[in-house]
Amino acid sequence: MFLTRTEYDRGVNTFSPEGRLFQVEYAIEAIKLGSTAIGLKTKEGVVLAVEKRVTSPLLEPSSVEKIMEIDEHIGCAMSGLIADARTLVEHARVETQNHRFSYGEPMTVESTTQAICDLALRFGEGDEESMSRPFGVSLLIAGHDENGPSLYYTDPSGTFWQCNAKAIGSGSEGADSSLQEQYNKELTLQEAETIALSILKQVMEEKVTPNNVDIAKVSPNYHLYTPAEVEAVIARL
Amino acid sequence: MFLTRTEYDRGVNTFSPEGRLFQVEYAIEAIKLGSTAIGLKTKEGVVLAVEKRVTSPLLEPSSVEKIMEIDEHIGCAMSGLIADARTLVEHARVETQNHRFSYGEPMTVESTTQAICDLALRFGEGDEESMSRPFGVSLLIAGHDENGPSLYYTDPSGTFWQCNAKAIGSGSEGADSSLQEQYNKELTLQEAETIALSILKQVMEEKVTPNNVDIAKVSPNYHLYTPAEVEAVIARL
Amino acid sequence: MFLTRTEYDRGVNTFSPEGRLFQVEYAIEAIKLGSTAIGLKTKEGVVLAVEKRVTSPLLEPSSVEKIMEIDEHIGCAMSGLIADARTLVEHARVETQNHRFSYGEPMTVESTTQAICDLALRFGEGDEESMSRPFGVSLLIAGHDENGPSLYYTDPSGTFWQCNAKAIGSGSEGADSSLQEQYNKELTLQEAETIALSILKQVMEEKVTPNNVDIAKVSPNYHLYTPAEVEAVIARL
Amino acid sequence: MFLTRTEYDRGVNTFSPEGRLFQVEYAIEAIKLGSTAIGLKTKEGVVLAVEKRVTSPLLEPSSVEKIMEIDEHIGCAMSGLIADARTLVEHARVETQNHRFSYGEPMTVESTTQAICDLALRFGEGDEESMSRPFGVSLLIAGHDENGPSLYYTDPSGTFWQCNAKAIGSGSEGADSSLQEQYNKELTLQEAETIALSILKQVMEEKVTPNNVDIAKVSPNYHLYTPAEVEAVIARL
Amino acid sequence: MFLTRTEYDRGVNTFSPEGRLFQVEYAIEAIKLGSTAIGLKTKEGVVLAVEKRVTSPLLEPSSVEKIMEIDEHIGCAMSGLIADARTLVEHARVETQNHRFSYGEPMTVESTTQAICDLALRFGEGDEESMSRPFGVSLLIAGHDENGPSLYYTDPSGTFWQCNAKAIGSGSEGADSSLQEQYNKELTLQEAETIALSILKQVMEEKVTPNNVDIAKVSPNYHLYTPAEVEAVIARL
Amino acid sequence: MFLTRTEYDRGVNTFSPEGRLFQVEYAIEAIKLGSTAIGLKTKEGVVLAVEKRVTSPLLEPSSVEKIMEIDEHIGCAMSGLIADARTLVEHARVETQNHRFSYGEPMTVESTTQAICDLALRFGEGDEESMSRPFGVSLLIAGHDENGPSLYYTDPSGTFWQCNAKAIGSGSEGADSSLQEQYNKELTLQEAETIALSILKQVMEEKVTPNNVDIAKVSPNYHLYTPAEVEAVIARL
Amino acid sequence: MFLTRTEYDRGVNTFSPEGRLFQVEYAIEAIKLGSTAIGLKTKEGVVLAVEKRVTSPLLEPSSVEKIMEIDEHIGCAMSGLIADARTLVEHARVETQNHRFSYGEPMTVESTTQAICDLALRFGEGDEESMSRPFGVSLLIAGHDENGPSLYYTDPSGTFWQCNAKAIGSGSEGADSSLQEQYNKELTLQEAETIALSILKQVMEEKVTPNNVDIAKVSPNYHLYTPAEVEAVIARL
Repeated sequence: MFLTRTEYDRGVNTFSPEGRLFQVEYAIEAIKLGSTAIGLKTKEGVVLAVEKRVTSPLLEPSSVEKIMEIDEHIGCAMSGLIADARTLVEHARVETQNHRFSYGEPMTVESTTQAICDLALRFGEGDEESMSRPFGVSLLIAGHDENGPSLYYTDPSGTFWQCNAKAIGSGSEGADSSLQEQYNKELTLQEAETIALSILKQVMEEKVTPNNVDIAKVSPNYHLYTPAEVEAVIARL
Repeated sequence: MFLTRTEYDRGVNTFSPEGRLFQVEYAIEAIKLGSTAIGLKTKEGVVLAVEKRVTSPLLEPSSVEKIMEIDEHIGCAMSGLIADARTLVEHARVETQNHRFSYGEPMTVESTTQAICDLALRFGEGDEESMSRPFGVSLLIAGHDENGPSLYYTDPSGTFWQCNAKAIGSGSEGADSSLQEQYNKELTLQEAETIALSILKQVMEEKVTPNNVDIAKVSPNYHLYTPAEVEAVIARL
Repeated sequence: MFLTRTEYDRGVNTFSPEGRLFQVEYAIEAIKLGSTAIGLKTKEGVVLAVEKRVTSPLLEPSSVEKIMEIDEHIGCAMSGLIADARTLVEHARVETQNHRFSYGEPMTVESTTQAICDLALRFGEGDEESMSRPFGVSLLIAGHDENGPSLYYTDPSGTFWQCNAKAIGSGSEGADSSLQEQYNKELTLQEAETIALSILKQVMEEKVTPNNVDIAKVSPNYHLYTPAEVEAVIARL
Repeated sequence: MFLTRTEYDRGVNTFSPEGRLFQVEYAIEAIKLGSTAIGLKTKEGVVLAVEKRVTSPLLEPSSVEKIMEIDEHIGCAMSGLIADARTLVEHARVETQNHRFSYGEPMTVESTTQAICDLALRFGEGDEESMSRPFGVSLLIAGHDENGPSLYYTDPSGTFWQCNAKAIGSGSEGADSSLQEQYNKELTLQEAETIALSILKQVMEEKVTPNNVDIAKVSPNYHLYTPAEVEAVIARL
Repeated sequence: MFLTRTEYDRGVNTFSPEGRLFQVEYAIEAIKLGSTAIGLKTKEGVVLAVEKRVTSPLLEPSSVEKIMEIDEHIGCAMSGLIADARTLVEHARVETQNHRFSYGEPMTVESTTQAICDLALRFGEGDEESMSRPFGVSLLIAGHDENGPSLYYTDPSGTFWQCNAKAIGSGSEGADSSLQEQYNKELTLQEAETIALSILKQVMEEKVTPNNVDIAKVSPNYHLYTPAEVEAVIARL
Repeated sequence: MFLTRTEYDRGVNTFSPEGRLFQVEYAIEAIKLGSTAIGLKTKEGVVLAVEKRVTSPLLEPSSVEKIMEIDEHIGCAMSGLIADARTLVEHARVETQNHRFSYGEPMTVESTTQAICDLALRFGEGDEESMSRPFGVSLLIAGHDENGPSLYYTDPSGTFWQCNAKAIGSGSEGADSSLQEQYNKELTLQEAETIALSILKQVMEEKVTPNNVDIAKVSPNYHLYTPAEVEAVIARL
Repeated sequence: MFLTRTEYDRGVNTFSPEGRLFQVEYAIEAIKLGSTAIGLKTKEGVVLAVEKRVTSPLLEPSSVEKIMEIDEHIGCAMSGLIADARTLVEHARVETQNHRFSYGEPMTVESTTQAICDLALRFGEGDEESMSRPFGVSLLIAGHDENGPSLYYTDPSGTFWQCNAKAIGSGSEGADSSLQEQYNKELTLQEAETIALSILKQVMEEKVTPNNVDIAKVSPNYHLYTPAEVEAVIARL
């Protein structure tokens, strides 16, 4: 019941009588309002694809960034509050650069993901870098390290999971079902591109164009597709 | 429903059960009360035009500053709380100066915009420079760097977008429609001036004069139009 | 409606759903309870005139200070909470002295005004010098610098405007109308004195005497009129 | 109306919708519960006289201190919370001593008064020396400096006024009327003593004795009257 | 009325609309629940006597300490929260020891009392040594210095008074009346002992024994009576 | 009754009138929602077994870590919020590494458990490492030190107990009963493996496979079973 | 009445209108839910005996520690929240060790008790070591120093008493009555053991065994009884 919930979530980071953390649950709601993003892991590398909501024809599509590079071997797709995502990505960029500087080698994808989640978990603590509320964003982190390609999924609670394929955002429910039907471990990177975009197409309400989707891959380095490369994938659908 | 909303937005930076940040939404309301500002990007540079509400004939029109220089290659127009805007502009001026000093070259327009949004995002954190509430202002940031002319739009959530043309403030809805009709990428700077002022004229309730509008351009340097230059544009309408 | 407002203004510096900052609006109410102050800019300099509420014949009129010197080229008249005004004036005095010491030249009137407004804007931030609430005072800042004479008006939101003439305090509405009727840019300083005092006379409920008004000018230096000088202006009415 | 007021004064230092600071107004109520104190300025010096409420015959009258020395040329009478007054007086003593040490001359009476009011104004700020609530005390500060004798009156808002004569505390209303009738600038110090005590006598409910009043003068040095000196003034009534 | 009071005293140190500090008043209630303590000043020295509530025959009576030494020339009796009193006494012990160390002479009784009250006044300030609530204890401070014997009484507001005789705690009302009847300045120390104990006897509900009362004197040094010495006083009743 | 409880648990770490700490009790509820984990101590070492909830076939089962190594001689199984558990485990890893570095020997299992509980107890204190709420996780800590094998159980209150066998999480009630029936001190490690898995099987709603359970042992070193080793235990059921 | 109480105890450390500290009273309720502990002082030393609630046969009885060593000459029994007690005991261990190191001699039992109570008193102060709520535990502190054997009892308010015998926890009321009947100062240590255990037996609902009681003595050193030694005492009942 609604009113009773409000009694418990005023403390930003406090348990309800049923053992729930409402601010985290509400932040997850923010992600359900976000645009859809999809990730698929193949033997050859990881593919990320996102829907871009370009609300006005006067907006520069390339400035609606929903896929970002973290390090040359790691990129991520996001859904939710973009400004929050930028803070997490900026934090990860500093961490991976520091790691390269200190140890002379790239940070592993899991350590990078853990560093992002450590920051996400500590909301409400008054630390310098942490927020006074949960980060309202989920990330699909694609990378390639000594263990080969990998795909991680993070949520506002600071928890993460490793996945073969995953969808986040407003269309994630339908997209996840489609992924379970179409995914297998033997997919080529090109097949993964096609699956990602065909699923995005189903959940988007408008025609797919290089203006309203972005695609990136990590195989083994991060690469954001040019409009022409996106057009080529669209042509294959 | 109204009363329920009040339950959630007392924490300045807290999610509602639907995943919304009400203080940010309320700050956006502050901008809808503000005067209208318009920006257009052309190949030759960017034009900014603003309505100035000179509430008394005894006010010095030139002291109602709604377009400000950030660096010699960047300027911005604003709508909302002017005192808040001044804090953001002052922060950006320090950042661009530091960048020139450290790297011997101008800061890019995007980095400048990101620096402003980083500050805007961190409201309620208790940092030295940040506010205890969102900044109640939107900016149109016009600049020219190694990538040519560019126009950015920021809102109180700390999010930014790159645009070809954009209107903010109380008349933004109508002005945005007009911009979509009249904008094309081949506009000359002079045509952009004319379009900006003719759209402002539609949303303002009084006659357009050099006293109640300001125009500026960045092409490639920031220049605020003199009353005579404004008069010349008015004459072309 | 009243009760709904109270839901939003408990956070000292928080937006209401309509995008308003109630504590600032309430502070502005404090000024409407204050005594009237008037400023006029002429080519020869700026005139400030204030009503002094000397509530008891045993009070020393000269100790009811509503016009104060900031630097030798800047003075200000105030309406609202006098103790708050003293804090702002003291802050401005330190700033102008530091500027003279660091740069060997007087601070401009606009920079001085900006320094006052920076402090006013940051209420509720927990800074060392800032207040936990808005400063409940408006200032008319009169000065003379390399740009000639100038008059600024500040309010509790930290916003400022440059004016030719302006009235603040409980009688400001009527006084502003009279100023619009009588002001023109060609006034002599002596004519400005007469206008200021005649308007004050209209809004005050008692006879004007050197005991219940103060007059000052900046032309180009700050000078507070002696009782005899005030008497001379009264005699001209 | 009562309930509505409570909505606004919970923040210790917050404006009500009418622009009022309730905690300051409540502190002023505390003073209306206090014992009466009277000050008169003459050409020869300043006289302070206070009612002492000696609630039990077993109390040592001299330990009920309501007139205190600040420096050898400044003293003060108080009404309200005595423990609060001690903090203000102790602060003023340190300030005047520091001034003597730094500049080799006594602090002026106005600067001393300003120093007390600066501390009083900053309640609720979390500073080291300031209180979490307004100081619940009014002071009559009597002094003698290069400008001759002077009398200042401070209230919990941190505001001060210079007076010729002034009464504070529970009997202040009647006492102020009597002062206005009997005061003139040509009074001798002895006449001022007599007036002060005769007015105190009117507002006190018991017989005036050296046990329940204190008298002090600053002319030019602070001197607290001995019981015999007080008896001599009583004898003149 | 009860509910209205609760509106105002939630801020630990905040005035009510009538100018009252409720947390201090509530702390004074805590003392009315405490055991009775009595002090009498004579020319030969000061006597302190307290009721000890030994709630169980298995309690060690000597561990119920309600009279404590502060320095060799100062002792105090207490009523209210014993743990709070210990903090105040410990603070006073450090202050008096520091004074001896710095100045090579004992601290005066008044300075010691003032030091205790300074700490008591600053509750709710967040200082290192201060409490988040008023100290719930009253002290009778007996001492002997260059001014001879003296007796001070402190309450939770941080106010103090010098007395000839004073009772505190649950039986203080009746005991104070008896003291006023029986006290005179010519009492010998032995007579004072007898009066103190005979008054305690009236307010206690059980037979007076060396187990349930403590007596101490300062003449000129602090001395806590042995059971035999207490027995001797009882025998004189 | 529900509403009354809410009155008391808003302070994160505050007693209710019945002497209860509700936030701790609510955190314990969070654990009742978690997956089941089981630990058994034998003479040969300790066995840990956990249910893994792999909610999607596209999730990488090995990334759902519910058993973690703390040091080479200590491991733990967890139920509740995994991100919280990671913080506790990370803290324990640092503590054990520091101990090895400072003393040249492994930390005992009890000291390690105590270090975890010290952190868990101090929620709501504002320390750097502590949380603003209780840690919503229970741990089964298995280790081997100079005292042989040992198994500890911790809860969100920061309390710990040493056990021979223990189950936590949503199925813990049934699992604990089964453990009491089947446990005896003479079990071999292999028998313990079989018992742990057969009990897990009862409480899980799906078929047990190497994908949805994890097993680890400490004998004397921590070892997480490979899928093949898990399959071997399943085969013995 | 219940609802009214809740108005006052939200401030963790605030007086109610009747002068009560509810959080302390609620913490005392937490102890009434705790297991029973008993202490007896004899000429030969002090005996401590506690009930251990071993809720499951799989729990290691020796890990339910309700009697702990503080220093070699001091031990304590506890009732209430065990994690809180551990913090107090750990604090006392550091204090006694520091004392030995600084002064080369053991800390007295009273100073040790005072150190524990100082920490207990300062809850809600935000100090580094203090809690944000009262410590929910009572201690029976048994020791032996230059004054011979002694037994202290502390409660959550930070108050302590010296006792000959004392019971705490859920069965304390009945146990205290029995102690008053059976205690005399001439008891031998062995008689004290027998009395303690026979009283524990009365208040426990199950058969007394070495698994569900612990006994310790300080005579002059702390010694926790082995199961065999406990069995020997049981045999004497």
